[in-house]
Amino acid sequence: MQKIFYPDSIVVIGVSEKAENLGRNIAENIIRFEYKGKLYLIGRVKGNLDNIPILDSFDDLPEGIDLAVILTPAATTPAYLDQCGKKGIKYVIIETAGFSEFSEEGHRIEEKLGELAKQYGMRIVGPNCIGIVNTASGISTLFVREEKSEIAPGRTSFLSQSGGVVLTVADMLTAAGLGVGKEVSVGNKLDLKESDYLDYFLKDPETDVCLMYLESIVEGRALVNLANRAEKPIIILKSNTGQASHHVAQSHTAALANDDAIVSAAFRQFGITRARSFRELVLFAKGFAMPPVRGKKLCVFTRSGGHAIISADAATEFGFELDPFPPELMETARPFFRADIIDSTNPLDLGTVFDFNSYPILIEECLRTVKPNAIMLIFNYRRETIPLARQIAEQLKEMSWKYQTPIGLCYLTEMDELAYLERNLGYPVFLEVYDTIQTLAVSRDYFLWQQRTKAAQAAPPPKPAVPPDACQKAEKILQSRKSRQPLLPDALAIFEAYGIPVAPWVTAKSAEQAVKLADKVGYPLVVKAVGAEIVHKSDLGGVALNVRDADELQARIQAMQERIQAQVPGAEFQFLLQKMVPGGREVILGGKRDGSFGPVMLFGLGGIYVEVFKDVALRLAPLSEDEATGMIEEIQGAKLLHGVRGEPAVDLAGIKDTLLKLSQMMVDLREIYEVDLNPLLATPSGVTAVDARIIL
Amino acid sequence: MQKIFYPDSIVVIGVSEKAENLGRNIAENIIRFEYKGKLYLIGRVKGNLDNIPILDSFDDLPEGIDLAVILTPAATTPAYLDQCGKKGIKYVIIETAGFSEFSEEGHRIEEKLGELAKQYGMRIVGPNCIGIVNTASGISTLFVREEKSEIAPGRTSFLSQSGGVVLTVADMLTAAGLGVGKEVSVGNKLDLKESDYLDYFLKDPETDVCLMYLESIVEGRALVNLANRAEKPIIILKSNTGQASHHVAQSHTAALANDDAIVSAAFRQFGITRARSFRELVLFAKGFAMPPVRGKKLCVFTRSGGHAIISADAATEFGFELDPFPPELMETARPFFRADIIDSTNPLDLGTVFDFNSYPILIEECLRTVKPNAIMLIFNYRRETIPLARQIAEQLKEMSWKYQTPIGLCYLTEMDELAYLERNLGYPVFLEVYDTIQTLAVSRDYFLWQQRTKAAQAAPPPKPAVPPDACQKAEKILQSRKSRQPLLPDALAIFEAYGIPVAPWVTAKSAEQAVKLADKVGYPLVVKAVGAEIVHKSDLGGVALNVRDADELQARIQAMQERIQAQVPGAEFQFLLQKMVPGGREVILGGKRDGSFGPVMLFGLGGIYVEVFKDVALRLAPLSEDEATGMIEEIQGAKLLHGVRGEPAVDLAGIKDTLLKLSQMMVDLREIYEVDLNPLLATPSGVTAVDARIIL
Repeated sequence: MQKIFYPDSIVVIGVSEKAENLGRNIAENIIRFEYKGKLYLIGRVKGNLDNIPILDSFDDLPEGIDLAVILTPAATTPAYLDQCGKKGIKYVIIETAGFSEFSEEGHRIEEKLGELAKQYGMRIVGPNCIGIVNTASGISTLFVREEKSEIAPGRTSFLSQSGGVVLTVADMLTAAGLGVGKEVSVGNKLDLKESDYLDYFLKDPETDVCLMYLESIVEGRALVNLANRAEKPIIILKSNTGQASHHVAQSHTAALANDDAIVSAAFRQFGITRARSFRELVLFAKGFAMPPVRGKKLCVFTRSGGHAIISADAATEFGFELDPFPPELMETARPFFRADIIDSTNPLDLGTVFDFNSYPILIEECLRTVKPNAIMLIFNYRRETIPLARQIAEQLKEMSWKYQTPIGLCYLTEMDELAYLERNLGYPVFLEVYDTIQTLAVSRDYFLWQQRTKAAQAAPPPKPAVPPDACQKAEKILQSRKSRQPLLPDALAIFEAYGIPVAPWVTAKSAEQAVKLADKVGYPLVVKAVGAEIVHKSDLGGVALNVRDADELQARIQAMQERIQAQVPGAEFQFLLQKMVPGGREVILGGKRDGSFGPVMLFGLGGIYVEVFKDVALRLAPLSEDEATGMIEEIQGAKLLHGVRGEPAVDLAGIKDTLLKLSQMMVDLREIYEVDLNPLLATPSGVTAVDARIIL
Repeated sequence: MQKIFYPDSIVVIGVSEKAENLGRNIAENIIRFEYKGKLYLIGRVKGNLDNIPILDSFDDLPEGIDLAVILTPAATTPAYLDQCGKKGIKYVIIETAGFSEFSEEGHRIEEKLGELAKQYGMRIVGPNCIGIVNTASGISTLFVREEKSEIAPGRTSFLSQSGGVVLTVADMLTAAGLGVGKEVSVGNKLDLKESDYLDYFLKDPETDVCLMYLESIVEGRALVNLANRAEKPIIILKSNTGQASHHVAQSHTAALANDDAIVSAAFRQFGITRARSFRELVLFAKGFAMPPVRGKKLCVFTRSGGHAIISADAATEFGFELDPFPPELMETARPFFRADIIDSTNPLDLGTVFDFNSYPILIEECLRTVKPNAIMLIFNYRRETIPLARQIAEQLKEMSWKYQTPIGLCYLTEMDELAYLERNLGYPVFLEVYDTIQTLAVSRDYFLWQQRTKAAQAAPPPKPAVPPDACQKAEKILQSRKSRQPLLPDALAIFEAYGIPVAPWVTAKSAEQAVKLADKVGYPLVVKAVGAEIVHKSDLGGVALNVRDADELQARIQAMQERIQAQVPGAEFQFLLQKMVPGGREVILGGKRDGSFGPVMLFGLGGIYVEVFKDVALRLAPLSEDEATGMIEEIQGAKLLHGVRGEPAVDLAGIKDTLLKLSQMMVDLREIYEVDLNPLLATPSGVTAVDARIIL
């Protein structure tokens, strides 16, 4: 991909001298961005642009051009691509729209482009995209006119499923002082996909932070795998989350909606920061342009009690700790205060300190002695203080890097000065107390995730959670049946193979056999009718609870038999006898194979807690022990499992163990689409599965 | 208060020629703000400032000065205030700090100031404040140096519990193009309180929107009463919500923390918009600088599919409806599109429309024919389009007022141009898609609240919910007892007096009497021991459930008697027999007298739903019927009451009725501190209270 972003030569195809020609915009953007390589132009009519000839034939082009950019009517693109192939051009950006996002005919043309790319071994960006920008190599292939000064160079790169969004984010990154490294709009992804670009950005030595705008995530698993190995933060604005946007998204980039709860869970699990808006996308990127926040210890300096309180509220909301300042620091501070008594509260109110030069002194002393994980200065000043405030910002920037501790500069003054500082300081400036702390928290959470992930990767591989022959046994059971949905006995047997505790059970073909076998499970017991045609056993009267002895068993099975045969004449079925398990908390454990993210695990409390309160935790499988624990603790109802009103806690280790085994099952048995234990009964002394479902 | 904001003459006390003198800043700010009235200066040393003499004695001052501003050491302020009183000055701003927020001594000085104010009939702003600003009369009494150009005039007024915050919000209002009408920092509120200033702002013909920053709400009821009568929107940033801020807040303005859930509920109920940050405070104010959003119908125009999707997501999140555009509008649009086929989806993607002059044409056509409640234009453009984009903004601004429909201008381009537009257009400009729609939603919610409130005020008063003699009867029961906490029989009798259905009950002094009376309630029944010394009856074994006949009743009462006497020797108690009520959903209804907001009602599902899930609804009493219904529907668990899995709904009208009666009880019986029905059992056929508690 290096040749796309750092080509030695480019040909733009579809250029004319006309002012409204979009190909001309591309060519002129490349010139304005001071591209140093060779630039060739092709158009239908010969001409001249900024002293570069517009050629009307590929014959006049040299061999060995690195990159072609095509913006011609859709119908003409295959012919141009073919010519590129013949000229040995290996990388082509097709910006034209009107392909599969637009019509059947367009879809056919796009397929033709795909065939040509394969034939010549060409890699394609787009089609239906706005192109790429690389401020380092001086390239902008955008088809809207841009000035070089509109987009500041920087070390943040951006990958987008929408062209328009590229422009918006570039403006915002420039205004935020972060600038732009590389940008690409992926368009219809005929060839190169998000993960290809992300992989490149993650390896690119000129990129520190990767931002993405996505409308759909087709290969979620590939994305999180990249994130898991990445040494750089990734921030994603994922749209297309509501009903209203689905139709628009489909006609825009043929994007299908993802399950948004899975997207959020996967991002959290793999250290991807999710932004809800452009503002957050750029705001959070500012957090990564400072040294990392290595923990929860925050020190806040402010000139006003009001700002102190607001920052303390935000610190609480975002999980920071505000320890009071130690006496030594207060000694350093004392001479600068007008008041006699100063309060060592954190946030420290500098309202009676009128010599602003003391700010860097106090902050450096704090860095040296308190060693917080982050500092925040809320500096509220008027116009007359502008020169000094700028100078202090420079000092604190140096100090931040020297002590490897972020200093959140929340500057509050007139907008034009703030805009100047943001764009020019070379270090993040924040315009709002709340935003500053939220951003520090994002940086902290990413750092802590990285630490945990590295520790987990360095740790010895965990003991296998399941018996060594689990997978084999389960495969055998699955293969021995022809049904799409294994019956309950098979499902229970598969769970048992994986070492998951299941309430004792047997199957019987008749009431007589049931009576003989009942002692193997013991009374009281439950009888369930099982058979391929018994779809909703409860509705058919195919469940008998609390059967206390052999006589009752005999009678109730006979009644059941008659009921079912009356409703489903000729149905084949047998009886599953299962030990009644004395009460406990009902929990649900589930697994599902998501089209984009692969196996996903679910945990929640039973029944209405899932249905009405939507109180569930999700994680991608395979789960680590920490993640399994995390799922249990994450739900709101976790307190019930720990025991409320003096009740003892249920067997949390047992639930965790079962989650890990179920996760292993989802990884091993790829034919399983969905699985659930609903409910698993959890008591203080253990867990027991009583009902289970597997869908292939 | 008019004389504070529009004084004909001002004297500033505490001025010297020295550059670092803060009183000098006040005087010079007044001069720089081009105050048209007479300005006098008093200092310890005679001098001259900008050709105005600094007097060292009140003797040289004329009589009848409207306003004094004092900034001298705390200890000297009583003497100066006394002199003001003697000179007949009726309004005084005391900016000095170091009073009750600082020390015992300061507290005493502040009390002295209060006495003097009373003695002379003076009204006081502060002390410990930054003063006032009125851009209309050309006054800034701020003690930090300000330039007139730093703060643009406008029609948004701001009242703050913190001086520093005044400066921050003024900067942000100016940058947002809203400007500032009046500002005041209330300081320690020795005399004038938030509600005094708010009342004035609400009546002020030069103020359209009131913003407030509050750290504590001492008279919550007065605040919401003002809001309820107001014809102007009120937006409040309420801080001091977390543990970490409480200490800081106390040393800052002696502010005590409110119950934040009550604050939020009260704001929602009375149409006050709550902002979480400075950014939101100013953002939401922009929503009120456009015509109101009268409903949910939104039309979005955008140049990019990505922005279309993001706006559709936000529209869904904030409850807007995006109906497709009608064929007539699409006919108007067709000639502007480059593509043949255009999609009538809303958001409408103008990506292939290159003549931006069509935007106002299309939008006016939309206003004329579709008549949406709000329009949003997302305009993403480069530098070359700046002149045209400005011109379009002007056109749309006119159109918005002409059609009395807000047009959310979400302009996306370089920051300096956006900053220029925001400050100068004279109509809100938004810099982010999400923010635009969130702001339109705030404006809509306020408009709809206003409509509902006006309708309710115009409607005939509702029938009294409770029997006419309820209050009298209840008072009688309360007066006949001496206990701080009425026993269960009294509590039940009070609920019955209010017409709340209570499970049939009697009291008995002995087992024998109980057996005789039991038929009045019927078996099976519950026995509860009641007595002043029986605090936790369950712990003492003072509850017997499911008593089925007279023999069992006799036996269990005797056992109960022995158990209790063994544990609480000599305790006096009797037995309450209560009919066992067959199951149903448990709900909790409660009322509490909040120190700031007065009676507050609570509704939730029983037990763990309140304890673990915190799933409760709060409203201030008295409740209207709509509010009672709103409480029931607001909780997450409402679905359970409506019936899940085919169950019938419980008696929702009965719950509502009980809420209204309980609300009336809280209003009538002012000696009640807290009351709850926990649980009230709700079945499809009715509701029944089985346990109740009243705390006086």
